[in-house]
Amino acid sequence: MRSGTSFVTLTTDFGLDDEYVGVMKGVILRFAPAAGIIDLSHRIEPQNILQAASLLEAGYSYFPPNTLHVVVVDPGVGTSRKILWAKSGHYNFLAPDNGVLSKVIGDDSEAVFRSVTNSDLFLSPLSGTFHGRDIFAPVAGHLAAGLPPSLLGPEITPAQIIRLDFPKPVFSEDQQSLSGAVTGSDRFGNLLTNIHISDLAKLGPDPAKLCVSLGDNVIGPPQKSYGDKPKGTLLALIGSRGYLEIARSMDNALRMLGDRLSLPVMVTRNLDQ
Amino acid sequence: MRSGTSFVTLTTDFGLDDEYVGVMKGVILRFAPAAGIIDLSHRIEPQNILQAASLLEAGYSYFPPNTLHVVVVDPGVGTSRKILWAKSGHYNFLAPDNGVLSKVIGDDSEAVFRSVTNSDLFLSPLSGTFHGRDIFAPVAGHLAAGLPPSLLGPEITPAQIIRLDFPKPVFSEDQQSLSGAVTGSDRFGNLLTNIHISDLAKLGPDPAKLCVSLGDNVIGPPQKSYGDKPKGTLLALIGSRGYLEIARSMDNALRMLGDRLSLPVMVTRNLDQ
Amino acid sequence: MRSGTSFVTLTTDFGLDDEYVGVMKGVILRFAPAAGIIDLSHRIEPQNILQAASLLEAGYSYFPPNTLHVVVVDPGVGTSRKILWAKSGHYNFLAPDNGVLSKVIGDDSEAVFRSVTNSDLFLSPLSGTFHGRDIFAPVAGHLAAGLPPSLLGPEITPAQIIRLDFPKPVFSEDQQSLSGAVTGSDRFGNLLTNIHISDLAKLGPDPAKLCVSLGDNVIGPPQKSYGDKPKGTLLALIGSRGYLEIARSMDNALRMLGDRLSLPVMVTRNLDQ
Repeated sequence: MRSGTSFVTLTTDFGLDDEYVGVMKGVILRFAPAAGIIDLSHRIEPQNILQAASLLEAGYSYFPPNTLHVVVVDPGVGTSRKILWAKSGHYNFLAPDNGVLSKVIGDDSEAVFRSVTNSDLFLSPLSGTFHGRDIFAPVAGHLAAGLPPSLLGPEITPAQIIRLDFPKPVFSEDQQSLSGAVTGSDRFGNLLTNIHISDLAKLGPDPAKLCVSLGDNVIGPPQKSYGDKPKGTLLALIGSRGYLEIARSMDNALRMLGDRLSLPVMVTRNLDQ
Repeated sequence: MRSGTSFVTLTTDFGLDDEYVGVMKGVILRFAPAAGIIDLSHRIEPQNILQAASLLEAGYSYFPPNTLHVVVVDPGVGTSRKILWAKSGHYNFLAPDNGVLSKVIGDDSEAVFRSVTNSDLFLSPLSGTFHGRDIFAPVAGHLAAGLPPSLLGPEITPAQIIRLDFPKPVFSEDQQSLSGAVTGSDRFGNLLTNIHISDLAKLGPDPAKLCVSLGDNVIGPPQKSYGDKPKGTLLALIGSRGYLEIARSMDNALRMLGDRLSLPVMVTRNLDQ
Repeated sequence: MRSGTSFVTLTTDFGLDDEYVGVMKGVILRFAPAAGIIDLSHRIEPQNILQAASLLEAGYSYFPPNTLHVVVVDPGVGTSRKILWAKSGHYNFLAPDNGVLSKVIGDDSEAVFRSVTNSDLFLSPLSGTFHGRDIFAPVAGHLAAGLPPSLLGPEITPAQIIRLDFPKPVFSEDQQSLSGAVTGSDRFGNLLTNIHISDLAKLGPDPAKLCVSLGDNVIGPPQKSYGDKPKGTLLALIGSRGYLEIARSMDNALRMLGDRLSLPVMVTRNLDQ
C-alpha cells in the first residue's frame, strides 16, 4: 500500500482536446509527486455550474475519505470572485465561489470554509485566464502534500458564500402528486430528473403505488432495473444518483422523447390501489 | 519501484461525459489505495458486447502479468445474469457473463472461472442500475488489495459460461480464397476486418502472392506499413491487432469507402505467380 | 511520498475510442511499474504535427523536472523516419523525427539528441503500424525505469534533426503594426493566434496603447481576463499559452467569427495616445 497517498479529483469544463487538464496534473504533481489524481469529468458543458454541481453531488462520496475534490467551472476567472476551500464531512473541496458546491455542502452546519487568498501558493506570473493551472492546481498540490488549510486564507462564514437555488419539484396541495422536470440525459439516453428518492417517499411508502408520466406519456411505477420491462419499453426507475430517471429498456429514451424534455414529469399516488 | 502494485484496467461503455468512470475509480481506491488503474476504453458503443470483446482481445496481453481486466458493458445490469471472474494465462478478468470475454478465454482449457456471488463484497445499498459502481468496482478493489479469488463465489465450469460466436471468414472449397467482413473502423479511418493473420497463412506462406479486394475495389497484396504506398492510395495490411485492415496512405479510407462497408472483403491467392 | 517516481506524459493523435492509448500505458508499466503516466492530449487531429508541436510547447514546462514527454503523432510510422530522444533544459522528449519537437527544443544550444536505434529495447515482433506500442512505449518504460539514455542509440547533431517552420507574424516596415493569423480555437470558442506576447512588446511597452483587429472587426487593446468586458463583447487578451487570443466575454467567439478565421489578425500601435 502506498502510504500517505492523497487523492485529488478534478471536475472541469476544459474538455479533453487541449492541454489544460494535463497541465493541471503536471502542476499538482510538482508539489505532490505521490498524489493520486482521478478525473471525475472534464466534459461539463462550458460554464454550466448547475451541471457540475449535480455531477459532483452524484460522485463525491464514493472516494476515499480525505479526498480533495477540485472543481474548475469558472466563468468568472480573473474577476474578483473568491476561491473557496471547504471541508464537509469526510471530504475537502476547492472551487470558485460561484455556487458550484451548493449541493455538497448544502445543509452541513459543521462545514468549514476558507477564502483562498495566500498568493504565495499560486504560480507566478499569475495569468488572468487560467486559474486552473495557476491557482487551483498549485493549491491542490500543496494541500495534497500536507499544507495545513489554515495557511490558505481566512475562515469565512457559511453566510458569506454563494449558493445557487436549483429548481425543486412542486407538490400538489393535497400531497398526492408532484411535478418535476427533466434536467439532462446521460450517454445511454436515460433522462435524468430533479425528483429525488426522498421526494417520492413523501407520496407514500410503496413505490409500486406511484405512477410516473412525462407530459401525456404515462410510464408507470418505478422499476428496479433497466431490464425489468421488455426491450423498447419506456420505464421509470431510481437511477444511481438517487434521482428518478426515465429510461427505455435496452434502448435510448432521449431519441424517443427528445422533443418533450420541457414537459413536466408528474408522479401521482395511485389512489385506487 | 512501487512494491506490490496491482494493476486494474477498465473497459466500459460509460463514456467520459458523466461521473460514472471516476466513481468506479473512487470505489476501487477505497479498497485498494495503491492500485494502478488504467483506462482501456470507455467509448465502447452503448451495449456493444462484440466491440468490447474485440478491443479487449487487442489489448489485454500488453499489460503487466496479473493485471485484472474489468469490463462493464452490461445490457443485463440488474437482471439475473451472472458476474464472472476468470483467470486465463497471466491475466484475471471480471465481467458480466454475457460473452464479452469470449475472445480472451476462448480456447484456454486451463482457464478458471468463478461466479461472483459474495454480496459482502458489494456496496450496500446495491442499486439495480449501476453495478459498475456497486459490484464490479468494490470486487476489483478487494482483489487488487489481495483478496483470494476463492472468496468471490463458487467455481463454475467452462460449459456454464456464455460464449458468443463472432462471424468468421469463410474459405472457398478449393481453399484458394476467403471471404470476410469489415467489422469497424478506427480514428484514422482504417477499416478493420475479421480476417486474422492466421487465416491468411492458410492461403499460402507468402503474403505478396495474395490479393485483397473490397467488393469490386481491387486493393492488392498486404503491405508492411501505411506509408508503403503513395499518399491517397488504398492499401491492405495486417494491423496492430493481428487482423487485416484496409487503409489509405496518409488519408482516411472510411471517408472514401464508407458506402461499401457491407460488401465482402475477399482475399485470393494469386495463381499466376 | 513515492520515492523515485518517474513521470511520463503522452501526446498522441490516437483518440480515446480505441485501445491504443491504454495499451501504450500497459507496455510502459511492464517496464516501469512505478511510473506516473499523464495524458497531455490524445485528441490531436490525425497526423497534425503543427497542432501537437503547439500543444506540447504550451504544456511541457509545467511538469515536474525530468519528466519524459512522449509524442506519437507519426504519419511516417513504419517508414525510414528516425525516432528521436532529446534532452533540453529540465525535460526529456521522445518523438518521431518529423519536426514535432521544433517548438520545445528550438533555440536550445545545450540540447542533446540521440537517434533511437537499439532494437533490443523494442517489442518483438515489431509491427509496421503501431510504433507507439512497439517502440515508443517500451523505450519510455526503460527510460522511466532508469535506463541510461546513452544506450538508446548514437548521439546526433542538431543539424541532423528535422525542424518545421511555423508561420510567424509579419511586422510593417515602420514597426508600428504587425499582421498575424488565427491558428485554431479551444473548447470555449476562444480563437488562438500566432502572435506571441513578445511580438506585442516590440510594438511598445504599454498594451493599452495597442489595438487588435480581425479583418475589419476592430476589437481594441488586450484585456487582462475574459470578464473584463460585458457579456457578449469581443475582446483580445494574452491567453494562458502566452499568445494573443480573441475571445467573447461569457460566450463563444468561434461561433460569431467562424467565417473569418482566414482573415489577418492585425495589431497596431495607437499613435494618437
